[in-house]
Amino acid sequence: MNEQLLLKNVRQVLIRQEETIIFALLERAQFRTNAKVYEPGVFGEATEGESLCGYMLRETEKLHARMRRYTSPDEHPFFDNLPVPILPALSWQENPLNPNSINHNAEIRDIYEKQIIPAVCTEGDDSQYGSSAVCDVICLQALSRRIHYGKFVAESKYQHNPQLFEPLIHAGDKTALFVAITDETVEQQVLERVMDKAAAYGREAAETSQPANPYAKAITGVYRDIIIPMNKQIQVEYLLNRLDKTE
Amino acid sequence: MNEQLLLKNVRQVLIRQEETIIFALLERAQFRTNAKVYEPGVFGEATEGESLCGYMLRETEKLHARMRRYTSPDEHPFFDNLPVPILPALSWQENPLNPNSINHNAEIRDIYEKQIIPAVCTEGDDSQYGSSAVCDVICLQALSRRIHYGKFVAESKYQHNPQLFEPLIHAGDKTALFVAITDETVEQQVLERVMDKAAAYGREAAETSQPANPYAKAITGVYRDIIIPMNKQIQVEYLLNRLDKTE
Repeated sequence: MNEQLLLKNVRQVLIRQEETIIFALLERAQFRTNAKVYEPGVFGEATEGESLCGYMLRETEKLHARMRRYTSPDEHPFFDNLPVPILPALSWQENPLNPNSINHNAEIRDIYEKQIIPAVCTEGDDSQYGSSAVCDVICLQALSRRIHYGKFVAESKYQHNPQLFEPLIHAGDKTALFVAITDETVEQQVLERVMDKAAAYGREAAETSQPANPYAKAITGVYRDIIIPMNKQIQVEYLLNRLDKTE
Repeated sequence: MNEQLLLKNVRQVLIRQEETIIFALLERAQFRTNAKVYEPGVFGEATEGESLCGYMLRETEKLHARMRRYTSPDEHPFFDNLPVPILPALSWQENPLNPNSINHNAEIRDIYEKQIIPAVCTEGDDSQYGSSAVCDVICLQALSRRIHYGKFVAESKYQHNPQLFEPLIHAGDKTALFVAITDETVEQQVLERVMDKAAAYGREAAETSQPANPYAKAITGVYRDIIIPMNKQIQVEYLLNRLDKTE
């Protein structure tokens, strides 16, 4: 088996990403919700029809595409028609995934703007539009990577037990696949770990006058209600496309 | 006094920046030193004579300049000739600093590439050039902001005790200014706090087989040997330019 797909390595990558996501959300939470940042065209022609957040995201993706970011199977762009890489391809890099075009970034961006921002940030406008948009890009990239890592999780689970998954895939049985990939004990561990980490990091970030850390609960909620369910949705979708059904 | 300059607020900003710097360095430490990232022109014409790190930094600064990042008195660009902001100026934002053009970014970049990278990253080449350069930009921006915040520290100290500083400034007495701005107790507290935080965050980031956290010591060294001394150097330089000496 490809080393990237060993279950302990997949889990290690997911745990490492927790730090990135928690820290990115805490950075964004320094600023108000700043609804203007998500309204298309509000800053005029320069954002080319996008919101400020969308403009920052697209321009950052153009730059990162030149760094070959989106040639990596664990990275998914939010925008199409990105420039070609200026770096040569990593010829030694093996893609352990089955070919697929699953990309839920449009949904991730929508949920981020409509649910995550209001959950994590204090309602209001502090004029810190540029700073907010810079943080948004880092949050969105981290969330996208974590959620789409479901492809690696699913491929790992499949390769560990193809006998379990093949009949379910052939039958197109979404519900049974959902049950097969679910490990409630691990999910509970993730939520507890995220709560602990967010509480530890957030202590410094929160105003010292706060009696409790207001961020840990909100960030754990993002994991429980958005990241874990979307990751599992992608696992099931990936598995349904895992076999050529005419086999 | 401008609220930004209250000593407790200045300290709070500096403490908050510790999380950003520690986390940025830990993210970079995931990858090898990757010396190629800092060699100009090694990736061909596309980087326009810059190293990959320099190219990423310049392109990011162009984007952030459009978000008016460098109109803020606590932000300093590494490059000249950046585009004008697409956001309107923050007219309500008061600049509490004395006009100055102090910018040590060339030195910060040099020290980052030659001292910080070898101190924090494992020697070698893992081909993760794009990822390294993305982290480099975040590290350099965080270091630049922290080091140049010496201007706010110095202005705060000056306004709290102009009688102490005015004669030293008039005399151009660098050594006495250096003594006047130094608070060894606070410096020691910073180093202890950074060690604690880096140890706590680094536990997850470090490979689990490591007996001790290898990053905390290196990151504390960066604070002790680079960030704190450069910050103090900027405080003294700012103060020397604080008064028109013909007054």
